[in-house]
Amino acid sequence: MRANIHTWKFIRTILLFTLPVLFIGATTPTGPDPIAPPAPDEGMYPLSEIAKLDLASAGLEIPVEEIYNPNGASLVDALARVGGCTGSFVSAEGLIITNHHCGFDFVRRASTVENNYLEDGFLAETRADEIPAEGLDCKITVGYEDVSERVLAAVEGLDVAARSRKIAEVSRQIEAEAEAAEAGVDAEVKEMFIGRSYVLFKYNTINDVRLTYVPPRSIGEFGGERDNWIWPRHTGDFTFMRAYVAPDGSYASYSPDNVPYKPKRHIRVNADGAHDGDFVFILGYPGTTFRHRPAAFVDYHERVRLPLISDAFGEIIDAFEELGEDDPERALELASIVKSLANVYKNYNGKMLGLRRIDLVERKKEEERELRAFIDATPELADKYGGLLDEIDATYEPLFSFGKERLAYWTIDRLVGSHVALESLVRYVDLKGIPESERPEKLDDDELEAKKHQLLNFYYDRLDFERDRATYVAVFRAALEHPELRTVAPFSRFADAADPNAAVEEFFREAFESSVLVDRDALAAAFEKTHDELVALNDPLVETTRRVAYRLEELDARKAEIDETLNLLEARLLDVKKAWKQERFIPDANSTLRLTYGYVRGYSPVDATYYNPITTLKGVVEKSYIDDPVYDVPEILYKLYERAAFGRFYDEKVGGVPVGLLYNMDTTGGNSGSPILDSKGRLVGVNFDRAYEATINDYAWDESYSRSIGVDIRYVLWTAWQVGGADALLAELGVDL
Amino acid sequence: MRANIHTWKFIRTILLFTLPVLFIGATTPTGPDPIAPPAPDEGMYPLSEIAKLDLASAGLEIPVEEIYNPNGASLVDALARVGGCTGSFVSAEGLIITNHHCGFDFVRRASTVENNYLEDGFLAETRADEIPAEGLDCKITVGYEDVSERVLAAVEGLDVAARSRKIAEVSRQIEAEAEAAEAGVDAEVKEMFIGRSYVLFKYNTINDVRLTYVPPRSIGEFGGERDNWIWPRHTGDFTFMRAYVAPDGSYASYSPDNVPYKPKRHIRVNADGAHDGDFVFILGYPGTTFRHRPAAFVDYHERVRLPLISDAFGEIIDAFEELGEDDPERALELASIVKSLANVYKNYNGKMLGLRRIDLVERKKEEERELRAFIDATPELADKYGGLLDEIDATYEPLFSFGKERLAYWTIDRLVGSHVALESLVRYVDLKGIPESERPEKLDDDELEAKKHQLLNFYYDRLDFERDRATYVAVFRAALEHPELRTVAPFSRFADAADPNAAVEEFFREAFESSVLVDRDALAAAFEKTHDELVALNDPLVETTRRVAYRLEELDARKAEIDETLNLLEARLLDVKKAWKQERFIPDANSTLRLTYGYVRGYSPVDATYYNPITTLKGVVEKSYIDDPVYDVPEILYKLYERAAFGRFYDEKVGGVPVGLLYNMDTTGGNSGSPILDSKGRLVGVNFDRAYEATINDYAWDESYSRSIGVDIRYVLWTAWQVGGADALLAELGVDL
Repeated sequence: MRANIHTWKFIRTILLFTLPVLFIGATTPTGPDPIAPPAPDEGMYPLSEIAKLDLASAGLEIPVEEIYNPNGASLVDALARVGGCTGSFVSAEGLIITNHHCGFDFVRRASTVENNYLEDGFLAETRADEIPAEGLDCKITVGYEDVSERVLAAVEGLDVAARSRKIAEVSRQIEAEAEAAEAGVDAEVKEMFIGRSYVLFKYNTINDVRLTYVPPRSIGEFGGERDNWIWPRHTGDFTFMRAYVAPDGSYASYSPDNVPYKPKRHIRVNADGAHDGDFVFILGYPGTTFRHRPAAFVDYHERVRLPLISDAFGEIIDAFEELGEDDPERALELASIVKSLANVYKNYNGKMLGLRRIDLVERKKEEERELRAFIDATPELADKYGGLLDEIDATYEPLFSFGKERLAYWTIDRLVGSHVALESLVRYVDLKGIPESERPEKLDDDELEAKKHQLLNFYYDRLDFERDRATYVAVFRAALEHPELRTVAPFSRFADAADPNAAVEEFFREAFESSVLVDRDALAAAFEKTHDELVALNDPLVETTRRVAYRLEELDARKAEIDETLNLLEARLLDVKKAWKQERFIPDANSTLRLTYGYVRGYSPVDATYYNPITTLKGVVEKSYIDDPVYDVPEILYKLYERAAFGRFYDEKVGGVPVGLLYNMDTTGGNSGSPILDSKGRLVGVNFDRAYEATINDYAWDESYSRSIGVDIRYVLWTAWQVGGADALLAELGVDL
Repeated sequence: MRANIHTWKFIRTILLFTLPVLFIGATTPTGPDPIAPPAPDEGMYPLSEIAKLDLASAGLEIPVEEIYNPNGASLVDALARVGGCTGSFVSAEGLIITNHHCGFDFVRRASTVENNYLEDGFLAETRADEIPAEGLDCKITVGYEDVSERVLAAVEGLDVAARSRKIAEVSRQIEAEAEAAEAGVDAEVKEMFIGRSYVLFKYNTINDVRLTYVPPRSIGEFGGERDNWIWPRHTGDFTFMRAYVAPDGSYASYSPDNVPYKPKRHIRVNADGAHDGDFVFILGYPGTTFRHRPAAFVDYHERVRLPLISDAFGEIIDAFEELGEDDPERALELASIVKSLANVYKNYNGKMLGLRRIDLVERKKEEERELRAFIDATPELADKYGGLLDEIDATYEPLFSFGKERLAYWTIDRLVGSHVALESLVRYVDLKGIPESERPEKLDDDELEAKKHQLLNFYYDRLDFERDRATYVAVFRAALEHPELRTVAPFSRFADAADPNAAVEEFFREAFESSVLVDRDALAAAFEKTHDELVALNDPLVETTRRVAYRLEELDARKAEIDETLNLLEARLLDVKKAWKQERFIPDANSTLRLTYGYVRGYSPVDATYYNPITTLKGVVEKSYIDDPVYDVPEILYKLYERAAFGRFYDEKVGGVPVGLLYNMDTTGGNSGSPILDSKGRLVGVNFDRAYEATINDYAWDESYSRSIGVDIRYVLWTAWQVGGADALLAELGVDL
């Protein structure tokens, strides 16, 4: 989530080139806050709420303290935030289970042409064979504390802009104090309800995580992008890792001397799995939801954010697929970024469809009309909140006029390396032109030179002009499909062309041919120019960059200002809604530890269709006959299936080895890898996705369509045993065959 | 279905340009004959078999003579073959109901920019307003007679080639006699079991058919290609027409003086429709099935015919879509041919998937192994049929080596106008070079000149070089994906290029630039050359045409010879299979009148999925929110839905107005428009498609996946009433509102 000041971003964009999976998280931005009334099973409950739930009536067969107990060991101690995902400890020796897609990039990095663990899968025969997942850490929540009073006391009476800065400042201070007080603790203050409540979370961070067992990609990613967000599902999306610490228990970086981490508690496996209708619950780190946001927020997403991003990403995906069409090596190189974009693209399209179908904006508007009536009918409320809803609407209003423009630039800023490079040039030249002390960004000459050096000597070689040209063209094509953008420079110059798309293509072909960017010496020379000299070059790419970069900076600042204003307004909205509804509110997801519960349950998402909540190995084989490489399976799987080599994992009720699991729990991105636990707190599956209709979970949960998807523990165990030959792993999990 | 001798085909190819829908029928070629054992509900029963069925036990509540009675009026008299489809009379005044897609081209031709009946729908307020469906006729079966004895007696002792000619000759003779014997009768002898039984069918042909009510395209074609072959379905695929005859009852062409045809019998409508589990039956004209064909036949389809055609059509569809991508007018122009190709493409892919899934070739091979054992175990059978199965396999063998080559040429021959034009040139020049009396095709000089004239003065202007170039390139690209074709000229020259696809594209770009074809004068001049002079031109397009045309002629002749041999071999196979199975066999579909029966029944085509057999209006609205123009609906439909303006057509059991109907009856292409009749012989729907899994019905029927799709009569009536305002039509159907 970007705050306000636009700073140079070599590193971030380079990361994007190498870590596209992390980017997925980055594209579901913006914070938390309060509206829709909690439905029966809705709710991502923070730790503070768990004790208040009547989980026994819902079906839990263990004491609730077994789940969370601040004074002893509980299941929460077996949870870990693994990268942007969730994982859980499943043995006393630091064994972690999470999703295949969460470990994907680390397995890829560990792979070579000779040892392609990504394609073939990986099994560490002994602990010594486990491979470090370089760059991956693993956070364990060790405590939390409500710090709302201290934060809010500090901002009493401040105006909007000062308030926002002060909250950040006090939060950093609280974090520093907590980290100083306790060795090995990482602290983080999170806003729970917008502008109203703040909680300090304390974590331990394990820095040595290693790969233990990874299924072949054809199982771990079975169905690929085609099945992404889709039920019925047959993906074996799981991976085993192991956490290591120094012999003295400290959280050291990788060392061969490190020893397996001993979690305070680990989760036991229920090798008999769950069945249709069973009570289940999930612990995990869901990322972001918007349930409490007002109608105007959803309206902004539906009419501005989702369509613009989805059109832009859609065009980029098409362009990249064309680049790779007759060039398999190129296609492979772009596969990862295409996958990330496609994930967002499909998710956003699911959201748009869902928002149209349930007409959520109208529903929220109706609720706000009722709230207005309630406020107007109560004099003391009318005094305090009389104009609140109008004020909120008015604050959102500008986003409808500049929102798409900002998002188009944002896409360029995030995805076009050439833009980032030329922005460095433009800013360098502009800043050099003014005395150090007067520069808006406090960069001295030494720092500027260092950045120039970094660009010319490191970053430059990683630029991909063909890809960048294709991305520019794609974003411009997408922008020109939106009438609001056809009158805005730099898009407007193409709007009246006979064939705007061809004109865009022509422009960028010529721009890339003639720009100083494509010749390192010319680029280096350009750094020595003054602002006016640079402008006089009349380099179309440089001028496009100048426009996009400065305008984005301006629009980001306006957006930040709006968000600050909304922080206070929506805090007040929450206050009055609490008075109105007289209900307990649950804060929106914010990447902190939450519990959700529900039932294994099928559904009927569309007319004349019913889906069972458990898929089987038969479905894997069925799909494998479809002529699409995403459904290729290892040859051995056919043989095992034909031999009916199912062992104890055959389920009589469903008539096969269970593979996928569907349930009506409330999850979102960040819940990937979360353990699915049964009424006795045993592991029955690993969460990894939602059904297509449930992409709108982020805005509104409903029993009729909100379904999440996991891999059944029986498929995990069967695969590890029969495909992977990981007998020792099953023994460590306490599973008898 | 092409027989053997290759003749000039201006007309056929021109028809293809204007009547692509008819082409669909043309692409499911090749005749009938006997294998898979009849399953419980399998069967497309000919009229001769109906009386032998125990339909009462199955659920029929009227005497079977009500369905077919050669000595009086019965439901069969209410049936009509409408173009390549089926229709049925639903009033005493010649009112016909059939599918929207069967009337599509006739409605399109009747439409203008001002009166776009195709898009907006059409209602004739009075009979005088009904619009002639020019070119459409309507055949009614008036009798049939088994003529097997006479046909087979005539071929006694003839060798294979003579036998085949003789069967055709005797059949024509029987037809001529029948037509001479009875005024107004069209006669047709059809082979029922390959080489074993022949039936003379007599028809009356009505030549004046008019449009009465057509729903808007957004209803009649709802879901478009995307939903084609798919359940759950929501297409209102119906149209009403009316048949007219001269005042004296004769089958005259259109005249304002004509009067509505009075059918001997018409079908009553059951406005309450059918329900899950109800007995239903269908009368109609199914086109072609291959159930009785041997394993080698299915193997040939699975490994040769289906993959080659589907790859070629797939490439052509892509190429045409690219042509239309930035040119909406061009896209519209190509929409019809793309639709036809896409229909076949999806059908063939469904078949390939189904054949892989059920492993039908292996199943048939297994059955043939058992049959071999049975033959070997019985001395008199061993004498007679000992080598039969080997002989059949050996006869099919050559098709595996030249089949793909022939089909690639066949595709060019059917879809490339430029090829047809240049073939005229090549043949003209070659034939002119030899004396009239020695020409293999008996064309005299006058005829040759007439053809040249026709090409240069009429056909030439309709050539579309861009489209033809794209088609050539697409077929060559597809061919190069098949290793067997990479060594065959004209494909082989590209096989070793660094980028074969680019080489193909380059070749045809240059070929079209330099060919005599693209300049009418040059083409006219080329006609005056000798064979050697034409060759000396070294025109790559002319030489490609020469190769393709002559080689196709040769391969077609070989194919015809194989088919003749198989006619006798498969006849004998049927004989021995009858001796083995001791069962009554039902002949494969051959476009003659058949009955099939079964039940309204949902199904579970894939893992964890169940589909109800009745869809509702809710599903139409749901799909309309998907961002795809194929799901656009008329605005009024939303309003009616919101107002719950369902009238008597709301079904309590399914909770909505029924739209689509699914049943386990045995249908295939040609059954389009067939009436779905209930236990009392009343109309409850109109058949129009099969589910995706049932595309393999043509090879094998199975209760688990064979489902056909119709439009529910309640959606027909509701649409005509509420969307069309066709109250008079409902009154004519005897429906009270």
